[in-house]
Amino acid sequence: MGKIGCASLEFEKKPYIKASACVAGKKEGEGPLGPDIDKIIEKPEAGQNCWEEAESELQRQMLEILLEKGGVSRKSLRYIFAGDLLGQIIATSFAVEDYRVPLFGLYGACSTMGEAMSLASIVVSAGYADNVVAMTSSHFASAEKQFRFPLDYGSQRPLSSTWTVTGSGGVIISSEKSNVAIRGITTGRIIDYGVTDSMNMGAAMAPAACDLIYQNLADFEIKPDFYDAIYTGDLGKVGQTILIDLLLERGVDITSVHHDCGIEIFDNERQGTYSGGSGCGCSAVTLCSRIIKKLEMGELNRVLFVPTGALLSTTSFNEGKSVPGIAHGVILERMN
Amino acid sequence: MGKIGCASLEFEKKPYIKASACVAGKKEGEGPLGPDIDKIIEKPEAGQNCWEEAESELQRQMLEILLEKGGVSRKSLRYIFAGDLLGQIIATSFAVEDYRVPLFGLYGACSTMGEAMSLASIVVSAGYADNVVAMTSSHFASAEKQFRFPLDYGSQRPLSSTWTVTGSGGVIISSEKSNVAIRGITTGRIIDYGVTDSMNMGAAMAPAACDLIYQNLADFEIKPDFYDAIYTGDLGKVGQTILIDLLLERGVDITSVHHDCGIEIFDNERQGTYSGGSGCGCSAVTLCSRIIKKLEMGELNRVLFVPTGALLSTTSFNEGKSVPGIAHGVILERMN
Repeated sequence: MGKIGCASLEFEKKPYIKASACVAGKKEGEGPLGPDIDKIIEKPEAGQNCWEEAESELQRQMLEILLEKGGVSRKSLRYIFAGDLLGQIIATSFAVEDYRVPLFGLYGACSTMGEAMSLASIVVSAGYADNVVAMTSSHFASAEKQFRFPLDYGSQRPLSSTWTVTGSGGVIISSEKSNVAIRGITTGRIIDYGVTDSMNMGAAMAPAACDLIYQNLADFEIKPDFYDAIYTGDLGKVGQTILIDLLLERGVDITSVHHDCGIEIFDNERQGTYSGGSGCGCSAVTLCSRIIKKLEMGELNRVLFVPTGALLSTTSFNEGKSVPGIAHGVILERMN
Repeated sequence: MGKIGCASLEFEKKPYIKASACVAGKKEGEGPLGPDIDKIIEKPEAGQNCWEEAESELQRQMLEILLEKGGVSRKSLRYIFAGDLLGQIIATSFAVEDYRVPLFGLYGACSTMGEAMSLASIVVSAGYADNVVAMTSSHFASAEKQFRFPLDYGSQRPLSSTWTVTGSGGVIISSEKSNVAIRGITTGRIIDYGVTDSMNMGAAMAPAACDLIYQNLADFEIKPDFYDAIYTGDLGKVGQTILIDLLLERGVDITSVHHDCGIEIFDNERQGTYSGGSGCGCSAVTLCSRIIKKLEMGELNRVLFVPTGALLSTTSFNEGKSVPGIAHGVILERMN
């Protein structure tokens, strides 16, 4: 117990998921997870003046629902671990400032939910906090503005492109027992295979997901069937194929247990989202609408949740540099 | 021991600073801390093709020195906690990718060194790692490019402006005893007094520093003279005045123990840096060149190190929004 292998921890004193919540936009609401999303925000502006403020508003509305579901007051919240995709994580900063809760601001691109849950679990497991929030968000329009082209250009999207999820998800990680525990974590490192296509984030992230899953299995000395499901964050269909191939090259077959939040969140055929969903909100919303519920209901007993991040920056991208990837793994377990 | 007050931790099992290192640019080398900086990088490009790559190179060179000083191999390094000012923390991502060490990417603006040390201390104190690096960087030119005007414009600087430090600093936080321990931490929250002047970061950060210091004293039930010195990160002269006034309004007088890394790092009169130094590198380089050495040599016995961050973003700034602040406090103590 404690340190396991090169990059993992197994918690002696397990932290638990006390509550989870998510809000999302209209398109996400019309997708397969719609019925399980706590609140659909119909208008992309969310009543705000700009896309970044709209993204902050998603976080605020999610956090209100989360605290109410968990029966936790702002004052009994020890820390918030949070981040988003925008430069200087402004969606997060402006979202949480009125809460006056100590904040650890994170940047892990779309792996942020895994990074936040990992650190929150460490703090709770070590006895340094009783209730901690791990949360993140993304917004289709703020992400397109930050990373690609103005929406008004109506740029064509290649088939490898993904659709940034408009949504926010969060969990309260607590020392108090519930029926979903965090058994351990595996922390990712930066993996860079030299992908330079900002319209193919799945390819940029798949090697990081491969490294993380391989490391997790090695550290815990287990095989993929140890898990009922391994959920990557937002590889999409293109990234999923690459991930499965890369792991097969290393002798690991995850085909029977692999799911990808980016594939689950939209009905790609019907919704025109090409390779799938993406963004910090993609894995967070899928976790908080589908995965945790399946654990609570006993449809799944043990899950490796692996949000994946592409460390894309317009500055480095325009300078011709690659898009490195990172992934963070969290082992979720149903308790009887 | 453990949780103290609303926002602090006091470590039962203390983490120690095993080694510290810093590199900096020519201007910083010509300043008061010059003789104590491990390596001066004479050219601002640091042999790279662009400012962002130069900043990554600062981190890489610092990390090499740090690992050598600490006698720690890459393989025995469990985690890196790091971040920088640039969008999507690209200076950090590209700096550490070849190390293949599990990474927690952080964004705390110029408070990043405090945030990284806080999380690294938690992980080591909890027994989840033996050797962890906390590090950060900033670069004058990459920061001006990111946040203000192209250098070639030759824009005039107001007297309240600060000069972003070109430098990187890092520490190895370890379970192995040394003569500088981390007694505890106080975690900051976002404080926003509505400052909208991107040329007056001191004013934006002073309220967050005030909140952090006040909270630290309240949580530990101590007075300012508990510390031999309280070092804020990069308030500069303008921010220092505001901080002292804000704390006096709350009945706390820190004048006899207060120092600011932004004031220490440059000779403002001679070097034309106006209000002082700033950037993640400012507090990190001052810590790793001056503060830790003074603790090691017994010139200081107990220090509250409070890096301060202004969560400035050009996107939110251009949308007319304020610049919120955050600060993170680390209590450093000389062990006999």
